[in-house]
Amino acid sequence: MIIQYDGTRYDGWQRQGNTADTIQGKIEKTLERLTGESIEIHGSGRTDAGVHAFGQVANVMLTDKREPEKLRLELNHYLPEDIAILKIEKVAPRFHSRLSAKKKTYRYQIEMGEKRDVFVRKFQYAFGQPLNLVEMKKAAKLLCGTHDFKSFCGNKKMKKSTIRTIDEIMISQEGTVITLQFTGNGFLQNMVRILVGTLIEVGQGKRQALSMEKLIEQKNRQEAGFMAPAEGLCLVEVMYESVEGN
Amino acid sequence: MIIQYDGTRYDGWQRQGNTADTIQGKIEKTLERLTGESIEIHGSGRTDAGVHAFGQVANVMLTDKREPEKLRLELNHYLPEDIAILKIEKVAPRFHSRLSAKKKTYRYQIEMGEKRDVFVRKFQYAFGQPLNLVEMKKAAKLLCGTHDFKSFCGNKKMKKSTIRTIDEIMISQEGTVITLQFTGNGFLQNMVRILVGTLIEVGQGKRQALSMEKLIEQKNRQEAGFMAPAEGLCLVEVMYESVEGN
Repeated sequence: MIIQYDGTRYDGWQRQGNTADTIQGKIEKTLERLTGESIEIHGSGRTDAGVHAFGQVANVMLTDKREPEKLRLELNHYLPEDIAILKIEKVAPRFHSRLSAKKKTYRYQIEMGEKRDVFVRKFQYAFGQPLNLVEMKKAAKLLCGTHDFKSFCGNKKMKKSTIRTIDEIMISQEGTVITLQFTGNGFLQNMVRILVGTLIEVGQGKRQALSMEKLIEQKNRQEAGFMAPAEGLCLVEVMYESVEGN
Repeated sequence: MIIQYDGTRYDGWQRQGNTADTIQGKIEKTLERLTGESIEIHGSGRTDAGVHAFGQVANVMLTDKREPEKLRLELNHYLPEDIAILKIEKVAPRFHSRLSAKKKTYRYQIEMGEKRDVFVRKFQYAFGQPLNLVEMKKAAKLLCGTHDFKSFCGNKKMKKSTIRTIDEIMISQEGTVITLQFTGNGFLQNMVRILVGTLIEVGQGKRQALSMEKLIEQKNRQEAGFMAPAEGLCLVEVMYESVEGN
């Protein structure tokens, strides 16, 4: 299933015990009520508290025989208005939304002006200062490619590989709003937000664009920039090799 | 001043006593605190509880000597994040945002699909059923022009003239979202929402497009359609002959 959510009032994607208000928890509970089955949904990855999704992907094993589209409509009917299921389709049993994912795209929006547009304010970071896009683009270029992104990992106890590949960081401006779009084969915990914080510091002139190479080599979270706030971040798309079991 | 607001949590534009949470009240209170002056702002017109504005216009008489742009930044700093002042400029003393207004444009958005986009859900009416746009456009054409719009007036005790001119009603579709844009020399209380409700009933086949002529002649609110909900409505622009005192 492809899921859209306004993450503002949630404690992130991942279910935490019984109490927390999470997106995974909301969908599981609704799906369990509809089907009477005890189920677990698997997301393509966690999103932090306050982070949004335009196209999160999750899979679930169901014995329920309803047509996917019928199930989707019923789910949407009972889900709160800040969570919507855009699509449900049958996939091969071996499909796993996280393990089968090939690429992901995240988008981060920054308002450089003194006040955010009231209609999209919940999806932008109210930075409120000008940024040098030319320098940010130079730095972004140096961050692309296959690197050990340990300096940009929010999990200090991360034991698995911190090597990832960023295919592209697109930076564009419309009026006083900057959009940074990251596409890669995977992102570490808080990685996009730390990349954004670091690029903002480059845009402010607090860091040199050329210092990115050294920063990657240092493999030290302390050397990277601040973690940009959650509200500006949105998981746009999760890409798979092919749609299986269609 | 040109004002943008997300009207979701407000009791409309117009100040009501001291208690109600209105947009006019919020701006006046903030402006009084900033200038120390006892002031009253005059809007181009009221917007109902829950209605939004992309470009509401209001004027105020101030003795404060601050530069308009400086005042604007200070105002925005203290106003809540769902109200933003886009522009402040000096005008001639005879300028009145309501009396000098020549035309206004309102926009109404309807989601025909089963669920609203989570990111714009607060600015659309969750109608959730298909509508026949061809018939709606035919009806809209008959509503344009100079007519007595008494059938579309929410104020039963209206004693002033209910004659208004609608220059244009543009109806467009993008995906499952319909946008109706109304431009005219003025709109009666609830008029846009009643026009939208009536056009929706035409789109559902409950009314004939051709019945609009008779409906106008009847001058009876009971004969027109339901009042579409506030959340779908936005005051887009107020137009003046010329920007005075620039």
